[in-house]
Amino acid sequence: MMSSVKRFLIGRPLKSDQLGDQKLNKTKALAILSSDALSSVAYGPEQILLVLITLSAAAFWYSIPIAAGVLVLLVALILSYRQIIFAYPQGGGAYVVSKENLGIYPGLIAGGSLLVDYILTVAVSVSAGTDAITSAFPSLHAYNVPIAIIFVLLITTLNLRGVTESASLLAYPVYLFVLALFVLIAVGIYNILTGQVSAELHAPLGTPVAGISLFLLLKAFSSGSSALTGVEAISNAIPNFKEPSPNNAAKTLLAMGSLLALLFSGIVFLAYYYGIVPRPEVTVVSDIAEQIFGRNFMYYFIQGTTALILILAANTGYSAFPLLAVNLAKDKFIPRMFTIRGDRLGYSNGILILGLLSIVLIVVFKGRTEHLIPLYAVGVFIPFTLSQSGMIVRWVRKKPEGWVMKLIINATGALISLIVTMMFFLTKFTQVWPVLVFIPLILVLFHRIHKHYEDVADQLRITSCTKALPIEGNIIIVPVAGITHVVENSLNYAKSLSAYQIIAVHVPFEREDEQVFEQKWTKWQPDIRLVSLYSPYRSIIHPLTKFIDTVQRKASESNYQVTVIVPQFIPKKGWHNILHNQSSLLLRAHLLYRRNVIITTVPYHLKK
Amino acid sequence: MMSSVKRFLIGRPLKSDQLGDQKLNKTKALAILSSDALSSVAYGPEQILLVLITLSAAAFWYSIPIAAGVLVLLVALILSYRQIIFAYPQGGGAYVVSKENLGIYPGLIAGGSLLVDYILTVAVSVSAGTDAITSAFPSLHAYNVPIAIIFVLLITTLNLRGVTESASLLAYPVYLFVLALFVLIAVGIYNILTGQVSAELHAPLGTPVAGISLFLLLKAFSSGSSALTGVEAISNAIPNFKEPSPNNAAKTLLAMGSLLALLFSGIVFLAYYYGIVPRPEVTVVSDIAEQIFGRNFMYYFIQGTTALILILAANTGYSAFPLLAVNLAKDKFIPRMFTIRGDRLGYSNGILILGLLSIVLIVVFKGRTEHLIPLYAVGVFIPFTLSQSGMIVRWVRKKPEGWVMKLIINATGALISLIVTMMFFLTKFTQVWPVLVFIPLILVLFHRIHKHYEDVADQLRITSCTKALPIEGNIIIVPVAGITHVVENSLNYAKSLSAYQIIAVHVPFEREDEQVFEQKWTKWQPDIRLVSLYSPYRSIIHPLTKFIDTVQRKASESNYQVTVIVPQFIPKKGWHNILHNQSSLLLRAHLLYRRNVIITTVPYHLKK
Repeated sequence: MMSSVKRFLIGRPLKSDQLGDQKLNKTKALAILSSDALSSVAYGPEQILLVLITLSAAAFWYSIPIAAGVLVLLVALILSYRQIIFAYPQGGGAYVVSKENLGIYPGLIAGGSLLVDYILTVAVSVSAGTDAITSAFPSLHAYNVPIAIIFVLLITTLNLRGVTESASLLAYPVYLFVLALFVLIAVGIYNILTGQVSAELHAPLGTPVAGISLFLLLKAFSSGSSALTGVEAISNAIPNFKEPSPNNAAKTLLAMGSLLALLFSGIVFLAYYYGIVPRPEVTVVSDIAEQIFGRNFMYYFIQGTTALILILAANTGYSAFPLLAVNLAKDKFIPRMFTIRGDRLGYSNGILILGLLSIVLIVVFKGRTEHLIPLYAVGVFIPFTLSQSGMIVRWVRKKPEGWVMKLIINATGALISLIVTMMFFLTKFTQVWPVLVFIPLILVLFHRIHKHYEDVADQLRITSCTKALPIEGNIIIVPVAGITHVVENSLNYAKSLSAYQIIAVHVPFEREDEQVFEQKWTKWQPDIRLVSLYSPYRSIIHPLTKFIDTVQRKASESNYQVTVIVPQFIPKKGWHNILHNQSSLLLRAHLLYRRNVIITTVPYHLKK
Repeated sequence: MMSSVKRFLIGRPLKSDQLGDQKLNKTKALAILSSDALSSVAYGPEQILLVLITLSAAAFWYSIPIAAGVLVLLVALILSYRQIIFAYPQGGGAYVVSKENLGIYPGLIAGGSLLVDYILTVAVSVSAGTDAITSAFPSLHAYNVPIAIIFVLLITTLNLRGVTESASLLAYPVYLFVLALFVLIAVGIYNILTGQVSAELHAPLGTPVAGISLFLLLKAFSSGSSALTGVEAISNAIPNFKEPSPNNAAKTLLAMGSLLALLFSGIVFLAYYYGIVPRPEVTVVSDIAEQIFGRNFMYYFIQGTTALILILAANTGYSAFPLLAVNLAKDKFIPRMFTIRGDRLGYSNGILILGLLSIVLIVVFKGRTEHLIPLYAVGVFIPFTLSQSGMIVRWVRKKPEGWVMKLIINATGALISLIVTMMFFLTKFTQVWPVLVFIPLILVLFHRIHKHYEDVADQLRITSCTKALPIEGNIIIVPVAGITHVVENSLNYAKSLSAYQIIAVHVPFEREDEQVFEQKWTKWQPDIRLVSLYSPYRSIIHPLTKFIDTVQRKASESNYQVTVIVPQFIPKKGWHNILHNQSSLLLRAHLLYRRNVIITTVPYHLKK
């Protein structure tokens, strides 16, 4: 039953060699990996205006130079990540780059913050998209959390089905959103060029503004930089691309960068020219669209695709998180299960854990995840800074042809990212301080997991010096509860093993039972020695464990091995288990984890 | 850790032969077994007035003849149950009596409805007591459910500690309550006799009342009979009494009956004479107490002990439920685990399940369990009727000395109980219909459980005709994941068993791994045959199961037994388990439940 539900949801399993079919071409990759970056156009420009409005509407012209600064940062990041793609065609992004060039701890800081960040991406973007939908249908507002959870479950299922299938489905909304914004920008600029828009709506560039400060401008700049989150996704996901993957990934990255630059500058420019003032209940994009189109079909089209792409931005997390987890798991910093490909060849454990944790975040924050945005932005810029710095070290070390130019590009990227990161800490400390708590915590966790794996490997490794002694003989202990077929079965098996000795053990709770049972036993199995362990406290496990300890102490002296044969009957139906006390299960668990004895379970399958 | 918490809560384990020390003397038994019956004095009289007030306050004089009717029923029940105690000194009450005399299905109806009823007792009485407390401290009202749950947990823990310990603690409130009500009644009557109470407060007996009908009177009568719930508890619990248990139980029953009769008639009389009109926010007892004492210490003493005894009424359920469950479990109608005595010699599984289910009821009904009272009353009167009828059949069959008198007593009890039961269905059908659903459901469940146990017994019984064939030889399959100490350990063990054949099985996911591993293996363990099962779908369990099936088919032809040796490493710390995929656990569960192979787990304990 369970398995047919699973089949229906995620499809039939794929063979390992079908992995090639699951790889992405450029069009699909752009859709699936850039929804996060592109969707940030929907809120990035607004973030700049929200800082400037603390002065006055006249300060809005500063959004133009600030946007130019963000564009410079974007260009630097795109060019740096393009270099990373070619330098690290196996993918891995910030974690791998920082680890290889700066050392293991910078790598783990980058990896850890990205890991947490992708969970935030999913929670934040799905909540934002749900908000957009429930703003349109206020009657749904009370169901924000369940709706957001349903979206997470949907995206999780799509990703479990496999990368290409989700790409085919997710490509439409992304391209429709891009199309919608291009139409908006084109019509807006056409209106301006044809003189339909009054120049008095905005203060001209260079208008002096009272109270302007570098601090404020930097704050506006770092807020606007939150539009660049998601830029790193492609460099993490190179292995998902069709061959030649680095070339395809680089081209996709450039396409994404160009789209992002065009849309971002278009929106900032229109907002400035149309004199848009950010209001709490209406987004800047919605305001622009209403001024240009009024409330016609295009307006609703833009609103609808915006809501959709906000939800789909979560998908970037689903592409990047499992791949990053594989890299960390291969290096033994997180549980090994993240390296296993599921039925549909995706790293299903990563996908499931990501879905689960983001649902937890949504539930804990009751769907109000907006104030996680700065946290999330700083969690992106830390690895940005680290990976660019890593590339600087790489160029200095390797000095390939044209390395000076490459170094300058990465150095610019590193510097601007560092400034943005610091600005977040300076201007929004109350919102980003948790980073300073969870990064050390994650590092400790990574360290402990790594140590455990290393310890295990040490202990399991076969080295010439430690050769296990051969076992001289076996002593078999069979706990018996009565004279039944189940016990008969186990005794038959014990006899077939040509053991040195077989001991049947009975644990009576009453003295009378003890004698009656012993008499019956001698009649039934005269060859097998029966030991009775009277248990006044009605515990089966304690007297048995004590007895086994005694036997084992003697046995180990002459290198004999003790095996406990546990008769267990398997009922035909699951619910029947509740009708049997199954002391054998408890006994087995107790012995296995506490004692060094071998446990053999002899099943007796009930037929009705 | 867990076990020391357990020790602290319920005390150290007791030996089986200390059971005698845990038995009850009459004083303690009265306290522990009659709290349910006595506490119903707190609401029984009110139930009568609530029906009569639908006509007019003038109709209140009818409460006197109705109370007389209830007293007749009480006498009949006490006498009948006294006869039951001597006839069934092993205890069991309605279930055993109905089963032996009327047949198995009437017995199960009685047993099933009592089983459910005791859960209702606990939920209803704890909720009522909590209500009484939070009425006194309105700021606690929002925490009704958690407070009720804490009380259930407390009573559960007390009962797990053992019958006598809880009796010592619980005796005080019960006797204080009885004392408080006696003082109330005595002072009330003294006031009347000394002429301090105006005779105009009440209509004289025999005042004609417009609209009075037999239906209404019967409804009032059946409502008042709810004060008799709990009367059967003593007959269920005879085994808890000190020897000679039947005599002690019978004396306790008479004492309880007398107390109940005195308190009940006293309260009804005072309510009538003082002209108390039931009001939603104040109980009748509280009203009487206020009129007699004003708001002085005695008033609060009566209120406090009433609240306490309502909560303690739950304890009757805790005494009776586990004993009834033992009887049903011994007859194989409910899971066997209910027959096991816990560390403190109480039937701890019954106590725990009762606590758990009543917490579920409290949570589901959000602590508002008042409207469960009729359901609960009808669930008591069905077994009352059945057990009295059973006694009629018994007297007719056995005809002991003086049987005609005994028969008349039980026949009176049966008839009145039947009338009360029918009145509940006629007058409160909307509240009691669930009985008609859950009794058939419980019967079906009892039947299926019984059938399963019978089937199992049939299959396990050793009969001469089915002698298991001896096993000719063993084939051992060892799934191997790598070349490690864990595997070495398992192979050493396999070799020591002098098996007919040992096969190591490896499940590679990639063709390349397959060859590499095979080469390494031949170097390492040249004597042991390695089978590689390439698994394109990356499943370990499916190819292994298929392989085992093939081996087993061949083996069973010549009566060979297949054993799968599962190497398993046991990490030093619990949380480490999450770091290992533990496919061995899954494999074991899968094979054990689906296939007829023997599973041997060879533990490898990690040292760090």
